[in-house]
Amino acid sequence: MSPGPGRKRLSSSRLAILAEGAFGVETAKTASSAVRYQPERVSSVIDSRFAGRTVGEALGFGGDIPIVATFAEALATEPRPEALLVGIAPQGGQLPDAWRAVLVAALEEGLDIISGLHFFLCDDPELAALADRHGCTLFDLRKPPPDLPVGAGRAMATDAFRVLTVGTDCNTGKMTVSLELQRALQARGVRAAFAATGQTGILIAGTGIAVDAVVSDFISGAAERLTLEAARGEDGEDGEGVDIVLVEGQGSLMHPGYSGVTHGLLHGTLPHAMILTWMPSRPRIYGGNHSWVVLPELDEVIRRYEDALAWACPEVPGRVIGVSLATYDIPEAEARAAVRHAREVTGLPATDPIRFGTAPLVEAILNAHETHREAPSYG
Amino acid sequence: MSPGPGRKRLSSSRLAILAEGAFGVETAKTASSAVRYQPERVSSVIDSRFAGRTVGEALGFGGDIPIVATFAEALATEPRPEALLVGIAPQGGQLPDAWRAVLVAALEEGLDIISGLHFFLCDDPELAALADRHGCTLFDLRKPPPDLPVGAGRAMATDAFRVLTVGTDCNTGKMTVSLELQRALQARGVRAAFAATGQTGILIAGTGIAVDAVVSDFISGAAERLTLEAARGEDGEDGEGVDIVLVEGQGSLMHPGYSGVTHGLLHGTLPHAMILTWMPSRPRIYGGNHSWVVLPELDEVIRRYEDALAWACPEVPGRVIGVSLATYDIPEAEARAAVRHAREVTGLPATDPIRFGTAPLVEAILNAHETHREAPSYG
Repeated sequence: MSPGPGRKRLSSSRLAILAEGAFGVETAKTASSAVRYQPERVSSVIDSRFAGRTVGEALGFGGDIPIVATFAEALATEPRPEALLVGIAPQGGQLPDAWRAVLVAALEEGLDIISGLHFFLCDDPELAALADRHGCTLFDLRKPPPDLPVGAGRAMATDAFRVLTVGTDCNTGKMTVSLELQRALQARGVRAAFAATGQTGILIAGTGIAVDAVVSDFISGAAERLTLEAARGEDGEDGEGVDIVLVEGQGSLMHPGYSGVTHGLLHGTLPHAMILTWMPSRPRIYGGNHSWVVLPELDEVIRRYEDALAWACPEVPGRVIGVSLATYDIPEAEARAAVRHAREVTGLPATDPIRFGTAPLVEAILNAHETHREAPSYG
Repeated sequence: MSPGPGRKRLSSSRLAILAEGAFGVETAKTASSAVRYQPERVSSVIDSRFAGRTVGEALGFGGDIPIVATFAEALATEPRPEALLVGIAPQGGQLPDAWRAVLVAALEEGLDIISGLHFFLCDDPELAALADRHGCTLFDLRKPPPDLPVGAGRAMATDAFRVLTVGTDCNTGKMTVSLELQRALQARGVRAAFAATGQTGILIAGTGIAVDAVVSDFISGAAERLTLEAARGEDGEDGEGVDIVLVEGQGSLMHPGYSGVTHGLLHGTLPHAMILTWMPSRPRIYGGNHSWVVLPELDEVIRRYEDALAWACPEVPGRVIGVSLATYDIPEAEARAAVRHAREVTGLPATDPIRFGTAPLVEAILNAHETHREAPSYG
C-alpha cells in the first residue's frame, strides 16, 4: 500500500473487526493489534464465542469495546463502523465461504473492507463490483506494488538514521517495539517514522509493503523503497524528512522458513542500528514444524545479524544496540530475571517495552544517532 | 513447473529461439544456454543482426545452427521447429509489443511457446485462446506452483546426498557446473539428479521451480519441495530414488539484491555439501547498481555460507567441498593461475569445469558422499 489519498481512511476509519471463532492475541494478530494500538477506532469485535463480553475481559486489554455475535449487531453498535477489518488470517490465506456473506453485507451498507488475506479482495469480481457500486474501498494490506525494483543499496542515500528490528524468531514483538519507540521518540521531539512491512503495521501506519507477499527477487528492493519513503516523512512529500526511520523487521535469520525474507530486509534497509527482539519463554523456534531449531545464546544471535549485514555493507557496519523482550507469558519476577540475563550476556540495554517501558532503548537509539552524526566517515 | 506429461515436450522438443537484437552469452542467457546444453534440439536462432551466420560463428560454440532474420525463415528451417523459445528476458520481464506478432504466428503454425518472462503468457487472454484453438502448450518457465509450503526442514528426510551450488555472485556458473557434474557422475554410474531453480535450468530439466518468482514467504518451501522431488528420481515416482541431488543455486549471500533468495535456498535445501562458484575477473558484485560491494577473499566467502547454513541446521553441518571457476573471459594462463589461487586459499579442489574438466569436483563429491554414508550420526 503506497501513501495516497486512502491513507487516512485506512489508518483512522472506525472499525468493526471480523474475528469469528478466532479472537485472541495469538490467533488473530491483526485484530488484537488493532485493539492494542488503536482502541479508539474500534467500534466492536465479531466473535460469537465471546458475545456479550468486552475486549478487556477477553484479552486483558482493550477496555470496554464490545464483542458481538453477528455483523448486524456490529453495524448497530455506536459509533457506527466505517470499515470492516478482516482480522483473522486463515491457513492458506484464502477467503472462507462463510465470510463472503458478511463482506457482501458490509459493502451493501457502504463500509470499506480492510483485509490482510493472501487472497486479494480487489481481484474478486463480485466484491470489486459491489465496492464500486457502493463507493467503498477494498484495502488489500498484503497486495504489493506492481513496480518494485531489485535492491541496490539505495537506502544508503537517506539522511535519516535507519533502525531495523531483528528477532530471535517470528512474533517476538518487532512491530510492537517499533511502534512504542516511535511514540516515545516523538514525545521527546524527535521526528521518527515507522516503516511497516507486515499487514498489521500497514493497517496502523496507513501505508507500507507486506514483504512476505512480495516476489522474492524484490524483497530487498521493497525494503529500500519503504525506507526511502519513510525517510521523506509522514506525507511522502519531498522536504526536510525525518530524523530516524524505524523499520519493522520480519521473521528471523534463525527461522528456516522465513530467513530469506529477513536477510532481504537486512540488505534492503542497511540499518545503522538494530534492536534485537527476544521471547525468553521460547528456547526453540516456535511452532511444531520448526521446533527442531534450537536458538543459540543472545550474543551469538547478535553476531549473526551483524555479520550478515557487514557482508553487504562494510560502509555501514550497523550494530545491535539493545534487546527488546516480550514477556507477557511469564510472571514478573521471571521477566525481570530475563531482562537482567539479556543485559549481562549482551552488554546492551534491555527491557520489555510494554511491561517495563521503552526508556533504555530510547536512550540507546538517541546515543547511537548522536555518535552517527558526529562520525564524518560513517555512511 | 511440476513433473508431468509436458516434461518431455518441454525438455526435448525442437526449438526455434527468439533472441532478436540480443543473442549473446551475457545478453540472452536462456538462448545461449539452450544452445550450449541442447544444441541437437535447436533448429535456428532468430536475430536479424547476425542473419546468415551460424551460432558457432557468433558465440564460439553451438556449431552449424543457423541464425535467421525472421520467424518465417525459422519456420522454413529443417528440421521444422516444434516450439518457439522466447530466449531473452527484457528489463522488467514484460512482453514487448513487437514480439506479440511473432508469438501469434508461432501458435497459428501449431508451435508450443516456452517463455521465461516474468509476464505469464498463459495469463494473456489472446495467447491462451490461440494456444487452445491450435492445440499448443504455453510453458511459462517462471510460473510458480500454486500450493507451496513454508519451509520446514523437510529436505532432511531425503536419503539422497544433497549438494547445493553457491556463488560469490550471480552468473558465475552455478547451473553450468551442476549440469556438468550430473553428466560426469552419471557417466560414473552414480544416480545423480539435477534440481532446477531458474528458467534455463527448468527448460533443460523439463521441471523445476524458478525460485526468484516465488512469493518470498515460500522460498525455502520451494527449495525443499524441489529437493524432495529430485531425490525421488527422474519420473517423480516413489521408488528407490537417486544417490545424489545437485540443487542449482541462485544469487549470492554477498549480493544485496538477491541475498534473500540465496539464504532461503540454503535453508530449504539444507545441503550436505556445497560447491562454490567464482568468476575471477570480478572483484566486485557485477552490474553498475551493485558494484559498490567488494567481494571478500574466497575463504571468507566460504565461512559465510557455512555459518549461514549451520544457523538453521547444526545437525547437517554442510561444508563447501570445492570451487568451480568461470574463466571464459580471461586467457588460459590467467585461468590456470586463478585455479591455483582458489586451491591455495581454500585448501579445496578447484577447476573450471568447462575449460579444464570436472574431475576434481567429481572426486570431491564422491568422497564427501562416502564420508556421509559412513557417519552414522550425520543427518
